[in-house]
Amino acid sequence: MASEFALIEHLLRQIRGIQTARPPILGPGDDCALINTSSPELIWAVTTDMLVSGVHFLDADDPRDLGWKTLAVNISDLAAMGAIPRYVTLAAAIPTQDALDKHWIDAFFAGFVDCLQAFDVALIGGDTTRGPRIFSVTAIGEVHSDQAIRRGGAQAEDDVWISGTPGYAALGLHAKLNDYRLPESIATTAHLALHRPQPRVTLGRELIGLAHSAIDVSDGILQDLGHIATASGLQGVLAEPLLPACPTGVDATLWRDCLLGGGDDYELLFTTPPTARALIETLSKRLSLPLTRIGRMQPVQSPTDAGTIIRNPVQLLDKVQHPIDLGRLRTGFDHFA
Amino acid sequence: MASEFALIEHLLRQIRGIQTARPPILGPGDDCALINTSSPELIWAVTTDMLVSGVHFLDADDPRDLGWKTLAVNISDLAAMGAIPRYVTLAAAIPTQDALDKHWIDAFFAGFVDCLQAFDVALIGGDTTRGPRIFSVTAIGEVHSDQAIRRGGAQAEDDVWISGTPGYAALGLHAKLNDYRLPESIATTAHLALHRPQPRVTLGRELIGLAHSAIDVSDGILQDLGHIATASGLQGVLAEPLLPACPTGVDATLWRDCLLGGGDDYELLFTTPPTARALIETLSKRLSLPLTRIGRMQPVQSPTDAGTIIRNPVQLLDKVQHPIDLGRLRTGFDHFA
Repeated sequence: MASEFALIEHLLRQIRGIQTARPPILGPGDDCALINTSSPELIWAVTTDMLVSGVHFLDADDPRDLGWKTLAVNISDLAAMGAIPRYVTLAAAIPTQDALDKHWIDAFFAGFVDCLQAFDVALIGGDTTRGPRIFSVTAIGEVHSDQAIRRGGAQAEDDVWISGTPGYAALGLHAKLNDYRLPESIATTAHLALHRPQPRVTLGRELIGLAHSAIDVSDGILQDLGHIATASGLQGVLAEPLLPACPTGVDATLWRDCLLGGGDDYELLFTTPPTARALIETLSKRLSLPLTRIGRMQPVQSPTDAGTIIRNPVQLLDKVQHPIDLGRLRTGFDHFA
Repeated sequence: MASEFALIEHLLRQIRGIQTARPPILGPGDDCALINTSSPELIWAVTTDMLVSGVHFLDADDPRDLGWKTLAVNISDLAAMGAIPRYVTLAAAIPTQDALDKHWIDAFFAGFVDCLQAFDVALIGGDTTRGPRIFSVTAIGEVHSDQAIRRGGAQAEDDVWISGTPGYAALGLHAKLNDYRLPESIATTAHLALHRPQPRVTLGRELIGLAHSAIDVSDGILQDLGHIATASGLQGVLAEPLLPACPTGVDATLWRDCLLGGGDDYELLFTTPPTARALIETLSKRLSLPLTRIGRMQPVQSPTDAGTIIRNPVQLLDKVQHPIDLGRLRTGFDHFA
């Protein structure tokens, strides 16, 4: 059992079938869980993410950026469901020196508060403990009960869209780790994409009633489109000629790796019916946010295909519709690989 | 800034005064936050706790016990507000070997599921990542909006009560660390108190309308009664002759340290008007749970006292009403001390 998803699936099997007095509307497996309030109209979306020193960030990172990102990645999950962020809790394990010398933790918290204020979210509770630097946030957002956008709602012939300019966060990570020198012209964009991701809350709200499905891209387009495809019982087909062009001065192979396999951009990947194209293009202009159509959803063609698609829920086709081998890109980011 | 509470206070000062569109009913500082639903009657209580290897548990601990306790300490916070536990999220950092060799994580999760089922709670989401063993749970419970029991509601002349038999978890910790040999007769009780704490959910529900204030004792009676006293603008007075007697064969000084300064029992400490004594005694019989009256709340006597009470919100009096020096016991458990 080598993968993160296999581990989660293995654990979740142990609780399937357990009945509780007040089951959630939607349990584990989407960007957020959905729970009822006693109001028939309003439901809560709940999500949790943990950031670990040495895995998600380095101790040498700017703590103010890290504080922003710790909250932003959770708000991004709410955005992907079309929810309005309202409340968060923060649990923090920090070394004793952080409690004694306030500089690091003050800067971290200042970045966290920047993000609280940018998205009008209230910090309602938390926990602090001694330990290696680890931060765990739970975020709660509200959405009307018939409006939450789920992963499993994609329909055959839907267009596949991506917001913003994904791939830059992964480029920024290569630059940070000193294994690739970025052209001057995009260095700042890549740095900001990695360290100050912008959760697409406004876009998520606008997609209510327009998008059949949505997910935030934390693990890479291939993997996250794969989640939509699997949850919807469909296959995702990406068209290479539609993908955002390689920035000038960047190696083309590295760019495709970053664009399709790199995570951490927290852009929204969503599907809409082809009839919505003009609306999405208008929306893109109104929000001053690139929204790029990169492919479509198609039915599983035959029982034989169905078996294949479990392993390959996403295909990439070149300009003459031939499949491009995705090789190691298929797996995306896996904590236990 | 040496203490956990000073650090939290320092950080919270940075968000006081920030307005949000949907402020919580009750923010940080109690066992749980309270947030509105769109229903006027029902509110959610939200709490979060993080458990860190080497701080809250040892890697050699029984993982099934640890899974139970990870959830139980969060449910205990809901119990202290009188809320019914409904939903939890679990974020887990685990070493790669736990994902590869399932034995440890399976046993951990089995204990977690034991506790889910014992309290009829649904696991609605989570996150897994590589890292040192750290678990962070957020628990959500429901309570009617005029019924949540807060820390700050104690009134002068209230009796102070404690549930169960606190002190045993701290005795169990001394035995586990091999710095004290417990009599055979209480070894199992102490072990279970430390490793399988029983959140007092039923008691918390029964205290609605009876108790003016409540808290779960995670940091020791002195410290947690101090929280009630400070939040209520009162002083807590413990009467030594009323405290639970030292178990046969245990050193009397160690017992007082464990009883007053030891945390981790997750019993409820609560205050009720003296007129409720007979009701509490009946409740104790009905629940088959010891409920022991151990002191009372008193007003802050004078402006001079008021200054003193910030430092010493709790006094312990002997049988002739003389104060007993509490010395190092005053501080309770502090992660950064």
